Parts: sequence; C-alpha cells; structure tokens
Amino acid sequence: MSLIVQKYGGSSVADAESIKRVAKRVVETRKAGNEVVVAVSAMGDTTDELLDLAHDVTPIPAPRELDMLLTAGERISMALLAMAIKSMGYDARSFTGSQAGMITDAQHGAARIVDVTPGRIRDALDDGAIAIVAGFQGFNRDTKDITTLGRGGSDTTAVALAAALGAEICEIYTDVDGVFTADPRIVPNARKIDRISSEEMLELAAAGAKVLYIRAVEYARRHGVILHVRSSFNNNEGTLVLNENAAEAAKQEDGSAVEAPIIAGVATDLSEAKITVVGVPDVPGKAAQIFKIVAKTDANVDMIVQNVSAAATGLTDISFTLPKSEGQRVLTALKAEQGDVGFQSLQYDDQIGKLALVGAGMRTNSGVSAKLFEALYEAGINIEMISTSEIRISVVTRADSVNEAARVVHRAFGLDGEGTAIVYAGTGR
Amino acid sequence: MSLIVQKYGGSSVADAESIKRVAKRVVETRKAGNEVVVAVSAMGDTTDELLDLAHDVTPIPAPRELDMLLTAGERISMALLAMAIKSMGYDARSFTGSQAGMITDAQHGAARIVDVTPGRIRDALDDGAIAIVAGFQGFNRDTKDITTLGRGGSDTTAVALAAALGAEICEIYTDVDGVFTADPRIVPNARKIDRISSEEMLELAAAGAKVLYIRAVEYARRHGVILHVRSSFNNNEGTLVLNENAAEAAKQEDGSAVEAPIIAGVATDLSEAKITVVGVPDVPGKAAQIFKIVAKTDANVDMIVQNVSAAATGLTDISFTLPKSEGQRVLTALKAEQGDVGFQSLQYDDQIGKLALVGAGMRTNSGVSAKLFEALYEAGINIEMISTSEIRISVVTRADSVNEAARVVHRAFGLDGEGTAIVYAGTGR
Repeated sequence: MSLIVQKYGGSSVADAESIKRVAKRVVETRKAGNEVVVAVSAMGDTTDELLDLAHDVTPIPAPRELDMLLTAGERISMALLAMAIKSMGYDARSFTGSQAGMITDAQHGAARIVDVTPGRIRDALDDGAIAIVAGFQGFNRDTKDITTLGRGGSDTTAVALAAALGAEICEIYTDVDGVFTADPRIVPNARKIDRISSEEMLELAAAGAKVLYIRAVEYARRHGVILHVRSSFNNNEGTLVLNENAAEAAKQEDGSAVEAPIIAGVATDLSEAKITVVGVPDVPGKAAQIFKIVAKTDANVDMIVQNVSAAATGLTDISFTLPKSEGQRVLTALKAEQGDVGFQSLQYDDQIGKLALVGAGMRTNSGVSAKLFEALYEAGINIEMISTSEIRISVVTRADSVNEAARVVHRAFGLDGEGTAIVYAGTGR
Repeated sequence: MSLIVQKYGGSSVADAESIKRVAKRVVETRKAGNEVVVAVSAMGDTTDELLDLAHDVTPIPAPRELDMLLTAGERISMALLAMAIKSMGYDARSFTGSQAGMITDAQHGAARIVDVTPGRIRDALDDGAIAIVAGFQGFNRDTKDITTLGRGGSDTTAVALAAALGAEICEIYTDVDGVFTADPRIVPNARKIDRISSEEMLELAAAGAKVLYIRAVEYARRHGVILHVRSSFNNNEGTLVLNENAAEAAKQEDGSAVEAPIIAGVATDLSEAKITVVGVPDVPGKAAQIFKIVAKTDANVDMIVQNVSAAATGLTDISFTLPKSEGQRVLTALKAEQGDVGFQSLQYDDQIGKLALVGAGMRTNSGVSAKLFEALYEAGINIEMISTSEIRISVVTRADSVNEAARVVHRAFGLDGEGTAIVYAGTGR
C-alpha cells in the first residue's frame, strides 16, 4: 500500500461544491488502495477576509493573535472536507497543525519547521482513516503557541508530512495543469513540462514562476520528496518535480534523454526595481560596506552587477535589483551612510523587467548565453544587466520589453508547443 | 486585586466596531485594578453560517468534524479581541478551550466539563496580561479531540473559569439590561430584577427565560459563583444572581428584606406540545411503562399530569408536555408499544402555552396558587394543566392566551413597574 500526500489550494476548496469535488478525488485515491494524507488551505478568500477583519480592528495586529486568527481558515476547510469524505462512507479525521505534529520555531507569521511528529496521522492511517491536515500552521513547543508558516505554507506542510511519513509522492493540486515552460498569459505557446529537476524548479520559482513556492521545493529536494504539480479540475498528468538524478533516470527510461531539452523554461518578473550606487571609490571593501548596509534592512537583493571602473576617475558604479516594496527602505539606509561610503549619488529605477532562462543542460552546453543574447538583439531588446548561475541566465530589460523578450527567447530555444496553452489563474497559499 | 471573569455573547462582538467597544470595557475593568479573564462567543451569526456551510457539504455532518468546524468561530473573535486590547497598550493573550484547560468528556456537540486546569490563564494573569478565552469549546483527554459544550456553552465556559480561578464575580454581558420579571416583549411593564437567587433563576431559565442558560446557572450555584447579568451597550447595573443565602443577606443589607417580593418573575414558553395517552388501564406500573418508552427516545418531558381514574371504566388519562420538535418521535415510539401498554389512543396538541410563576417566597407564603388561578379566571383564561415545584407554579393554557395570562399574572402579583421596559433582542450562544 502506497502513501500519497495531496495538497489542495484555496481555489480548489473555494465553496461547498468544490469541497465535495475534492472529497471525491481523495476517496478515489483511497479506493485505488493508497493511504491518503491531505493538506488543505483555507477556502478561497478566507485568509484575506480575516486579514481585513484584523485591520478593521487595529492597523498593526499582534503577530501571535494574527496567527491565532488566520489558523481559523484551514480549520474550517479541513473540517468541511473531512465531513464530506465521511458522508461518502470513508473514515476521515481532520487535524490542526499542532495535532499533526508540525513543530516550528516561534516566529509568528513566518515560522520555520523544526520537527515533524505525525504520530496521530500515522495512527489515523493505521485505523484505515484518511487524514486531513490544516496547511500553513504549526505549533511552538516553548511558548505552546500556534504559529503560521507564511506564504506558500500549505505546500510546505504537504511536503514536510510527505517527508516525515515517507510518502511515495506529494501531489500539489492547483488550478493550472502543472509547471509550464513560460507563463501562458505571456507566452501563448508555452507547454506544460512533464518532468523537471528540483534544481531547475527552484531556479524557476526564484525567478518568478508562481506555481510552486521555493521553500516547499527546497524542502522536497532536501528530503527526497517527489512532487507532482497538477490540476484539481481535471485528471491530466501534471508536472513531476524530481531530484536531479531521478529526473535524469526518468528521462532516460522513457527514451526522452536523447532529446532532453537543454532549457526547462523561461520565467519573467516585473516586481523588482534597480538601485545604482553611482561613483563608488574603486578600493577594496567598498562593495562589502554597501551590502552590509543593505543587509541590515533585511532587503532581498537579487542580481548584483559592478561595472569595470573607469581608470581615469578611480570610480565605479554598483547596481542591484530588489523587490519594489523594499526600494525606499534601502535608499534611505544608503543615503544615511553616503558620507561614510563616499559614493556620489543613488539612482532608482522601477521600470525594469527580469527574464530568466533555466535549464540543467546549460552545464554541458556552451552557447546558451550567446543564443539568448542574439535572440534579444534580433528583437531589438536592450539588455541592462546580466547575471548567471550554473543552470540559469538572468537578464534585466525595460519593463515594457520583458514579455516580448520571453516570447522570442521561448521560440529561439525551441520551447514553443503547438496551439495555445490554457491560462494561469493564480494559486492559493 | 480582584479577579473578574467577563463573558461577551455573539451580539456584543458582532463586528469590528463592537469588538473595539468590548475591548474598551475590558481595559476599563483592568485599569480599575482588576485581573480580567474574558470568555467570548463567535461573532454575530458566524456559528449559523458555519452550520449552513456544513449542511451544504453533507446533511448529517460528522460530530467530531462539526466541533472542529464550529470552534473556528470563537478562534476568530478571541484573536480579534486580543488584538484590539493589545492595540490599546494592554497585554492580552487569547486561548482556545484546550489551551485554557477546559477538559470535557468526549460527547461531541454537547460535551460536559469534567475538569478545568487553567494553568496558562493563571500564568497570563501573573504576567499582567488579560486572558481571552474561547467560549463554548473544550478538549477531551482520551481522544485528544476538540469538543463543544452545546447551547449556552460560552456562559458555562465563563462560569467554569470563574469557579476554577476563584473569581470574585462572573459578569455575563448581553444585549439586554439584565433579568426581567417577564419578557418585556410580552409584558411591557416588566421590570429589571436587581437581585435573584440562583434557585429562582434556574426555575425561570427552565421555564423559558432566555437570558441565561440553566446549565451555567447550575454550575454557578454548585460552585458558589456570583453572576452579574448586564448589558454590553451601557453601564447600568444588571441583575445579580446569588446563591440563596447570599441573596437573602444582600436583600436584608439594603433594607429590601421587609418588602422582599414573594414572586421573582413570570416566564412563558410557546415551544412545547402536549401528548395525552388516553384510556390507560389504572393498574400499578403503567405510568412507569409509558415513561420508559418515552425516555428511550431521549425526549425532554416537562410537566406530567395523571387524572383520577373514572371508577366505572378503570381507565385513566396521562398527559405530558415536551418540546414540539420531539413530538413525532415520541408519538411513533408510543404507537409501537400500544398493544403492550394497552392504552386506547394518543392525542397530540401543539397549540398550548406554558406560564410559570417563580419565587422563593412561595415556600413561606400560602395563597400564591389561589391568587394565580383567580387572576386567570378573572381574565377568562382556562387552565389545562397544573404542575408545581417548591418555588414554581406552572400552568398550561391555550397558546393564544398565554401572553395575556402573563400580563394579568404579572399585574396581580404587583410586579408591574412604571413605564415600559426595553425590549429583548435575543442572545448569543
């Protein structure tokens, strides 16, 4: 008997009808002879409605109480799902994060999992029951308080349970058919990816693909959990996210290795801005000094580029990108230390777009960046920054060019499928 | 420093504005130098909305899961109230029933409290914090499952905490000014009662007064908890519910003993029906046989009357009242045993009204029932059944006469106040 963990996002359990549909799918999985554990998000917009209520009461809700409040959301959806399954004649029991043994640190709103002790889940399975677990929530042993895991928390709950229970697979149900070679809203010819390595998935998620959260993918990779991202609205196979060796082996098994794509996909991101520190003295230690100031603001710096200094002046420029929401905070912090660092001025640009090309095949294939740059050149798109990892090339363009850039790059690397892909609709937490 | 437990019903925390108003009141109590524990119901109609959701999913929700679902309601209100208090600069912490140590049996939907271990509440108070506790909910140690206490559960939570923590008083905040000598919607001259014994309050609650639940009053009496029923919409003194000796002492203290009313109040109830078992053989054991059948249906029988048998036939009639909702169940059960019991037929009457006159003074004052019967006779109201306890007289009339009966009895016993009382609006759970 295999153990399968399934995760259903908020859009999959948005109302009573959706919950009944999910219950049917869960029961089918059980009928097929599997043990089933389900992690579930709050219904539809429940979390946002609870947040609105909190802000109606106070502009800055106390974090402990905000977690207490928000965890009511999954409590509702999990109880309803368990009822629906029981009414179909199958035993089901719902468990809060605390009851399911999701032990976290005490950081309310963004708690980290420190241990998973799913004894009650194992007992329920041993009794032949389906276990329904509240996603997104945990419990801190020291304070004995309820915590939440932050954005993407329900994915992480599912993966952590899959790891702790030794599940064969962790199915992430969402409202799209899987992971695509690009966002189909931007690149109509985007294709669903059948298999992708967790490393590639991580890079895509980090570069802006919304379908899976980085944290859940990381957890899955670290614990060898196989993810299957698929739609809760049909029975199509979705995207398997495997650790790299398994992904390679799987590719070879079905003969696809011969034509294994060098590039897994293209991701774009319009949420970032660029800060340029102009006229930095080109002496050792200045970059460190600047990024120490930035780090103190807790900003999430992404790309960093330093130009070669102009010999005549002994000055250089340092540019970096970061989420727009953090821009003003970082500018203020840098401005305050201008005298100490000795730079001339700051430039802020929030009209940038980022495009990332991801593929494990880059490691062994030269010429990928040349092909990328050429495709953009031919389309008349100017590249403002470049940064690379082992399996990713990212470029910054003007914001209004990035969608066109995604389309030309997608075509240039032979990723275009036939016909038009279905359109993303946004995912639950 | 005194410890005060306050309970706020659903109508007192119906929206963000109401929650802020309650927060202000809680903070004022804290500022006055008291330790404060608050038991809170779910916001407004939340519980009904959650019930509707459950019934959209399945006609018969699993009891364990229904409790899991409904407890989301208080989780929301208590977290919001704690946030509101914290935003006013006072420390507050919310606790679920389980965290507050409300240990119950495992009967989902109607769990009984078996132990109260409020260690975390005591710790919070010792830290100078205000403790906000979810009403209505508990925890079973054997199953480790969440339970709910049933109707009136939040009152019971408040009283149980007051008892376990040795509170000076338990304030029950509601949307009326206190306990009235009659329902002001029926008897416009009804007066607020300043002090009432718990025994009288029990009889009034049992006879249909909605402002307090029997169970909470019983718990308070058994553990010597003083209740103060008052409005959350103004600062008026409400009704003190004291155990009998304390009530008498209080009456004497302020000189009101001399004119202590014989009658505390009048209650009416239109929710009952009457079943008459016609032509029962007048031999020993028949009544026992009938009510054993009724008991098996779990029906809540209230008044029972057996007529003297007509000597000629050797047959008698037995009538009893019970909630209308249980009528058909009991009729079916009796019908099935007709041959065995040997009665002639069954009559069902759901057009009855019940009026109860309650007062500890009855014990030492004769003539109360004569005065009651006379008042009804003068108003031309026919009495169909009579039943009495030590401090209560109940009569059954036609349903359409019971409100008029309440008014004439209220007047006859000198309960009418000056002017018109404010009108009841219904209470939270």
